[in-house]
Amino acid sequence: MNIRDKVAVIGAGCSKFGENYDMSAEDMIVSAAFDAYTDAKIDPSQIQAAWVGTLSSANAGNALADPLKLFNIPITRVENYCASGMDAFRNACMAVASGMYDIVLALGFEKLRDSGQRGLGTFGNHPVVGYGTTAPSLFAMAANRYFSTYGIDKRALAKVAMKNHHNGTMSPKAHFQMEVTEEQVVNAPLICSPLGLFDCCPTTDGAAAVIICKAELAKSFRPDPVLVKGVGLAVTSGEPYLKPGFAYTGFPATAQAAQSAYEQAGMTVKDIDLVECHDCFTITEILNIEDLGLAKRGEGWRYVEEGRAAIGGEIPVNPSGGLKSFGHPIGATGVRMIYEVSQHLWNKAGARQVKDAEVGLAHNLGGPGSVGCVTILGNS
Amino acid sequence: MNIRDKVAVIGAGCSKFGENYDMSAEDMIVSAAFDAYTDAKIDPSQIQAAWVGTLSSANAGNALADPLKLFNIPITRVENYCASGMDAFRNACMAVASGMYDIVLALGFEKLRDSGQRGLGTFGNHPVVGYGTTAPSLFAMAANRYFSTYGIDKRALAKVAMKNHHNGTMSPKAHFQMEVTEEQVVNAPLICSPLGLFDCCPTTDGAAAVIICKAELAKSFRPDPVLVKGVGLAVTSGEPYLKPGFAYTGFPATAQAAQSAYEQAGMTVKDIDLVECHDCFTITEILNIEDLGLAKRGEGWRYVEEGRAAIGGEIPVNPSGGLKSFGHPIGATGVRMIYEVSQHLWNKAGARQVKDAEVGLAHNLGGPGSVGCVTILGNS
Repeated sequence: MNIRDKVAVIGAGCSKFGENYDMSAEDMIVSAAFDAYTDAKIDPSQIQAAWVGTLSSANAGNALADPLKLFNIPITRVENYCASGMDAFRNACMAVASGMYDIVLALGFEKLRDSGQRGLGTFGNHPVVGYGTTAPSLFAMAANRYFSTYGIDKRALAKVAMKNHHNGTMSPKAHFQMEVTEEQVVNAPLICSPLGLFDCCPTTDGAAAVIICKAELAKSFRPDPVLVKGVGLAVTSGEPYLKPGFAYTGFPATAQAAQSAYEQAGMTVKDIDLVECHDCFTITEILNIEDLGLAKRGEGWRYVEEGRAAIGGEIPVNPSGGLKSFGHPIGATGVRMIYEVSQHLWNKAGARQVKDAEVGLAHNLGGPGSVGCVTILGNS
Repeated sequence: MNIRDKVAVIGAGCSKFGENYDMSAEDMIVSAAFDAYTDAKIDPSQIQAAWVGTLSSANAGNALADPLKLFNIPITRVENYCASGMDAFRNACMAVASGMYDIVLALGFEKLRDSGQRGLGTFGNHPVVGYGTTAPSLFAMAANRYFSTYGIDKRALAKVAMKNHHNGTMSPKAHFQMEVTEEQVVNAPLICSPLGLFDCCPTTDGAAAVIICKAELAKSFRPDPVLVKGVGLAVTSGEPYLKPGFAYTGFPATAQAAQSAYEQAGMTVKDIDLVECHDCFTITEILNIEDLGLAKRGEGWRYVEEGRAAIGGEIPVNPSGGLKSFGHPIGATGVRMIYEVSQHLWNKAGARQVKDAEVGLAHNLGGPGSVGCVTILGNS
């Protein structure tokens, strides 16, 4: 039961990510979509259907119809917390694989600055945040549990921030292009102990888009389409942090989604050349590395510290700079990851290029922790 | 490009619709889902993936995961204004047709009473309602334009209310079981002229669910699966009422979605035995009848007045009682329509049964008017 090699990415686009006070949500949607159209060398009139992922910046398919003048075609809004973008991509892929459409658009976006929205802070009916906690406080609990279980401290987290800030310096569209030192990270103002300022992703505006097409047609658009090998989604309880059984040292939704994607692709972690994962906080990347199978339980921090997650390492993790540096406009992130992996498979990632990348994995987390989505892409 | 006959409905369920002060959203979700499981004779563990349609009663796939204990499977939330339910169904159908899953659940729900939500009133970023107008005021403009264009008056609308209230008396799960007279309708308190109280659908709580399966497997569950013949979605500008070119006497999104569904099904309106359409207001049913091709422009009102839309008429419209009597819990409605059409194709609709029904059409409108979704179902 899979759609392996039935669907291809033939174009990918991304707006500048950042505090885009000079851009409306519509401006960013247009920027990302036309970047993708140009990349795929298609005319907007060739788009037969679209999917849009956004947590709370707009409603319904109209979110794309007006800015992109995509009128009278099907457009679906998908919302799955911070994994809204990749689940929009997933539904678009299945629609193409079903035979209903040949060429479709998947676009994710979020306008968090200057929009009346302040991240999850105003998101009243969130199953966890709605109880008065915050995203940093929830992931801080995970960090503290991880520390006490495996005997490490926040210097391990700093290694994630240093790597992803370094990678961000090579990502022109990333929110941040700045190196950070270990001392800067560990001495930064505390957001929620043990997480300091540089352990947290920023509040970012942005949009990303990909053009998806039936695999048989893909080579009529470009010689090197990116094939969708597998795409897994898993949802656990919306309240993992409130349940007594929750271990705090990993997210079952990620592990389940990854297992599904690996099975669909007929691959294991050994086949993966790069990973874009959901480092909303530095601790999250460490947990993701373990949940995705790159390292054993309790050894994710070491995987980063030993440089195995660096560009040039065993399996580079977040060569884009990750949510940490690239930013996390919520609905955009999952699609931005597909964009990033595609850049590497097309050998177009510039200074941050992962050499000889043939298979990449993208991982989007939502909920926080209750929704996991994993996509495996390959260039043949 | 279609998924005709690849996907079947093997079970359908519905909670009681009404002012369910004694039921939470979760209670209604459980009621509808287990009604559908029982109908399909499946165990919940056989569900491989799910889609949930809700405008604003919950977020993410978690909306189903917790109440239904559907953990570690993919669950996607779809939101497309008042057409959220049928678009959730549509995405579920394409996922099954893609080969990714064999058996899935599509469920729509909304909790409007006793929930802090008051219909669209609090829906701040709605493209039209957000400007300070209300749903009744928008459809009232359509009614006034229709009246002045075709020279009729509100007695024509009353015929819709009378028919749908009559049908509702035969729908045990409908919000209302009460007849209304023409005098009651035309003399009712005005909501927004010319629409009176009985021209408006009520504010209703409810949930509906269907079990969808790969067509080849369907007969292992029941001898009479309902086949999905076509499912079309179209999105126009989110602000049709604010654009100078808008005619007010029909919704292009409905016409486009219907054309797509008819083409996929290889059918015309002549093949349709019954219609469930989106009568959020009485005028809307008249416009829908024209947009769907049952009557020519300007003759939808006559189609109702002459009894051709009645049970036993040419093509019965809203035998369930429609949104008018059955109620309109926003995300539930599109799935409830699939439920209703299936009851008729299974010859299980009791006193309101449309005789010898073999093909039914369901139509969900959102936006208001900017999103149209049309599904055609057949029993062979």
